[in-house]
Amino acid sequence: MKASSPPLAFPSLAEIEPGRRSRKKNKTRVDLMTAGVKLFATRGFDETTTTEIAELADVSQRTLFRHFPTKESLLYGDMEELRLNLREGLAARPNDEPILTSVREALIPPEEEFREQREHRLLQAQLAARYPSVSAYSRAVVQASWEREIIAAVSKRLGVDPMVDPRPEIIAGASISAIRIATRQWTASSGTANYIELLSDALGMIGSIGELDS
Amino acid sequence: MKASSPPLAFPSLAEIEPGRRSRKKNKTRVDLMTAGVKLFATRGFDETTTTEIAELADVSQRTLFRHFPTKESLLYGDMEELRLNLREGLAARPNDEPILTSVREALIPPEEEFREQREHRLLQAQLAARYPSVSAYSRAVVQASWEREIIAAVSKRLGVDPMVDPRPEIIAGASISAIRIATRQWTASSGTANYIELLSDALGMIGSIGELDS
Repeated sequence: MKASSPPLAFPSLAEIEPGRRSRKKNKTRVDLMTAGVKLFATRGFDETTTTEIAELADVSQRTLFRHFPTKESLLYGDMEELRLNLREGLAARPNDEPILTSVREALIPPEEEFREQREHRLLQAQLAARYPSVSAYSRAVVQASWEREIIAAVSKRLGVDPMVDPRPEIIAGASISAIRIATRQWTASSGTANYIELLSDALGMIGSIGELDS
Repeated sequence: MKASSPPLAFPSLAEIEPGRRSRKKNKTRVDLMTAGVKLFATRGFDETTTTEIAELADVSQRTLFRHFPTKESLLYGDMEELRLNLREGLAARPNDEPILTSVREALIPPEEEFREQREHRLLQAQLAARYPSVSAYSRAVVQASWEREIIAAVSKRLGVDPMVDPRPEIIAGASISAIRIATRQWTASSGTANYIELLSDALGMIGSIGELDS
């Protein structure tokens, strides 16, 4: 697989932090993620050991742990790139756009980007649905870090202090919930449903929740 | 402290599962939680070992692990009772009440109940603010389990399938976010602010999020 498969669209830390990490370090990182994904997909998450991942990637276990302290962090090794993309996406929305629209637009990945990440995202979601430690990592680390980005952007736009005004946190929580349900629907369809449509629909409902009480 | 402090309002599993657990088992559980809370509060969470908790509670480590597989589960040993209270509270709301009102009312603890739990909740929140493993457990286990209760109750009330209609999940996520921000505000005030008021305010804003876009 390593030679013949199409290259996976994993985050390039070189792109994230140009000049701060060598090309070699980045290659090791991508090799490790590629090896992990292959093993997780074929054998299962709990069933794969870090020894096996390191062997398949042809590096030492010590090198593996230097890049990824846990298997969960390896599976979500693209998290940091997605978080920075989200931050940029939020910052790029026009200031006079309605805030829920801005959040929705920033959270919906461009078609092409999504196509590249599709297989990896589906695997992450499938493993999160099956392995409690993966789901816990997704919630406690990945989703929490996205939430912080949304809280920061919404607070800035509304000109409020998120420790005083609960709305940024509520919008962030509702948005992450929309991602969660769209991802669950997509995973339940084994990836056959249109994820971007599901996500767009779910995010579009946040503003209308209040209508349930009127 | 064990002899002179007022009894902590920890969940009695005997009440949750009457007849299924002996009085003795429940006493051990409460002793362990009391010991853990005392040590966490004075020394810190990471700084306390399970050996020390077992010693203070006068039980073996094996007994401790039989009750609580991790220190986090010990700190949140009241979680199951609170979850069942929430389930009952949601089920008890009138069917013709607006759904966001039902969720809000079910999530706001009665004054007296809150007074009993106050110290313990504050400690949980303070430790979650300081120790990543506590915050992770709170999000991935405690908050996720409350969310599932809200999703189930809202789906039932709306008569929808939560795998098809994203609204129950969004309401649940927004509600848990409201709890999170109210708890953070309360913790930042070292417990001097009125938690029930903060929570009520935050939950009350869920329905008005949509107005931001109009």
